Amino acid sequence: AKPTTPPGYRLGDPTLARSPVTLDELDLLRGTLLMGDDDLVHLRLAGEVVRDQIEDILDVWYGFVGANPHLVRYFSNLSDGKPNAEYLARVRARFGQWIVDTTNARYDQAWLDYQHEVGLRHRKPGKNATDGVASVPHIPLRYVLAFVMPLSATMTPFLAKKGHPPETVAKMRDAWTKAVLLTAILWSEPYVKDGEF
Amino acid sequence: AKPTTPPGYRLGDPTLARSPVTLDELDLLRGTLLMGDDDLVHLRLAGEVVRDQIEDILDVWYGFVGANPHLVRYFSNLSDGKPNAEYLARVRARFGQWIVDTTNARYDQAWLDYQHEVGLRHRKPGKNATDGVASVPHIPLRYVLAFVMPLSATMTPFLAKKGHPPETVAKMRDAWTKAVLLTAILWSEPYVKDGEF
Ligand code: HEM
Ligand code: HEM
Repeated sequence: AKPTTPPGYRLGDPTLARSPVTLDELDLLRGTLLMGDDDLVHLRLAGEVVRDQIEDILDVWYGFVGANPHLVRYFSNLSDGKPNAEYLARVRARFGQWIVDTTNARYDQAWLDYQHEVGLRHRKPGKNATDGVASVPHIPLRYVLAFVMPLSATMTPFLAKKGHPPETVAKMRDAWTKAVLLTAILWSEPYVKDGEF
Repeated sequence: AKPTTPPGYRLGDPTLARSPVTLDELDLLRGTLLMGDDDLVHLRLAGEVVRDQIEDILDVWYGFVGANPHLVRYFSNLSDGKPNAEYLARVRARFGQWIVDTTNARYDQAWLDYQHEVGLRHRKPGKNATDGVASVPHIPLRYVLAFVMPLSATMTPFLAKKGHPPETVAKMRDAWTKAVLLTAILWSEPYVKDGEF
C-alpha cells in the first residue's frame, strides 16, 4: 500500500518554482562526482536494503542531532529555546520520504525542482514556513554540507544488514555518499553569491 | 631532507589574511563531520601510506581533470582556450604538498588561514594571480564541492597498497573523505552570501 504523503512534501508538484540548475548542468555535476551507471544500480539496491529500516535510520540521525546543541537549536522555538517536538516530527516524516526518494532518484526536472525547494527550506526566508513554526530562521551552509558525512557514515551498518558481500556494501555506501553530496550541493545554490554557484 | 616549497605556496605565512572562521567554529564543524580522534589516527596513517605515491595519485587526478573539458577549461588560456602547461605544473606541485599537509593537518590558526587563501584562489579575483596567468577567472562552487568525491574515491587503491587489512583501509578512506570535505567546506566561505556560511 502506498503510504500517505507527509504534510508539506511537494516532490512532483507542478506549481513548484523551477530550479535555476539545468538538466545539462546536473549531468556535468554527476560526471564530476564520478556518479556512473554502476552507482545507480547500487543506489537502487541500497533503497531495497534500507526500505524496512527507515525508522531505525532516522532514530540514529535524530539521535545525533539531538545530542548536538549546535544542531538541535535549528529545531528549537525562538520563544523558549526548547526543541519543538511537532516540528521535529513533521520534518522527520519528510526526511524518511527523502531517503526513499534519494535511492529512487531519476534526476529529472521534477526531482531537480524539489531540490531547489528543499535548499530554500534550510535557509532564510523559506525555513519554518512549511510547518508554520517560529524557530531559528537560518541554517548555516557549512553545517548542511558537513551533515553529508554523518548521513553517509552511519548508513554502512544498515546497508550491511541483509547479508550482501562487503564489496557490494562498499559500493552501496559510495553510491549513497555521492547521492547525498549531490543533494547537498544542489541545496547550496540559494546560499551562494550570484553567478558563483 | 625537507623538499623545497612549491612556488606560490604560503601555509604558515604570517602575512596571510586571517580566516573569517574561528577555531571554535572549526571544532563544531569537525564535530558535525563526525571527525574524531580515531579519524586523526587514520589520517596520519594514510599520510604515511601515500607519502611515496604522491606522483601516482596526482597522475590519476590530473588524468580525470584532463579527460573532462568542463574541468580542464579552468586551466586553459583565455587567448587560445588550450590548457596552460605551466599553470598545470605549478598548481600540481602545490597540490602534491596539499596531500601531505591534509594528512598532517593540525587544524590550528595557520592551517585555517591557508584554507581561506586557497578558497580565494579558486574564485574571482584570487584565481590566476599566484601564477600570473590569463585563464578563466572563476571556478563554480558546485564543481569544487563535487570534486570531493573523485579525490576521495580514487584514493582507496593507494591506501590499500601497503597491505593494511580492509577495515583499516576503510577507516583511512573515511578519515580522508572527511578531511577533504572539511577543506572544501572551508573553501566555500568566500562564495557564500554574507552571514549565510
Ligand atoms: C546533507 C545535509 C542534509 C540533508 C540531506 C537534510 C535533509 C533534510 C530533509 C530531507 C528535510 C525535509 C525536506 C522537505 O521539506 O521535504 C530537511 C529539513 C530540515 N532540516 Fe535538513 N538536511 C541536511 C542538513 C541539515 C542540517 C545541518 C540541519 C541543522 C540541524 C538541518 C535541519 C533541518 C530543519 C530544521 C529542517 C526543516 C526545514 C523547514 O522548516 O522546512 N538539516 N532536511
Ligand atoms: C575538493 C575540491 C578541490 C581540492 C581539494 C582542490 C585542491 C587544490 C589545491 C591544493 C590547489 C593549490 C592550492 C595552493 O595554491 O596552494 C588548487 C588550485 C587550483 N585548483 Fe583546485 N581543488 C579542488 C577543486 C577544483 C576544481 C573543481 C577545479 C576545476 C578544474 C580546480 C582547479 C584548480 C585551479 C585552476 C587551481 C589554481 C588556482 C590559482 O590560480 O591559484 N580545483 N586546488
